Amino acid sequence: MDFTFTQHDGFVVITFTLADGNATPDMLQAIDLGNLDFGQGFIISGRGPVWLFATLTHLLHPSQWVATHDPRLGGGVVTQSHIGDVAVGDVIKF
Amino acid sequence: MDFTFTQHDGFVVITFTLADGNATPDMLQAIDLGNLDFGQGFIISGRGPVWLFATLTHLLHPSQWVATHDPRLGGGVVTQSHIGDVAVGDVIKF
Repeated sequence: MDFTFTQHDGFVVITFTLADGNATPDMLQAIDLGNLDFGQGFIISGRGPVWLFATLTHLLHPSQWVATHDPRLGGGVVTQSHIGDVAVGDVIKF
Repeated sequence: MDFTFTQHDGFVVITFTLADGNATPDMLQAIDLGNLDFGQGFIISGRGPVWLFATLTHLLHPSQWVATHDPRLGGGVVTQSHIGDVAVGDVIKF
């Protein structure tokens, strides 16, 4: 599994790519996002199973806020936030 | 959004149902799972967007472990765990 990190103003879009387009649960333990600056938000993007998004959401918990990309909505839907000006349910367009 | 709670041995399956089969981000703030016994695991099940699963995952963080149901795998894939005998990536069949 590869990750690309795209810096935006105040947040990073993390896009995962699965080697053969498929994910297996045993991949989850090995996920290493490296050294991240948690003083900002993160939007998780990619084509993969719900449990991959849920695992990444948990790993990004220390950050300011976490969203998952919904292409139909044109951005990331915030699923947790620790700061006042971003709320759960907000759609962060990018 | 309605939730049904099915008690199993050591975990609960939470199944959500969307009134018209659709979810909108503004629903997330209103989610109320009620009083839960966090001394066990939880498997989230239902048909809905990734960000709904991610929000529920976050709300269930205080529990022993959290999984998301993957019908293809016949159970819940553990995405976070605070106890030693259940690990991230485990598939809890039910």
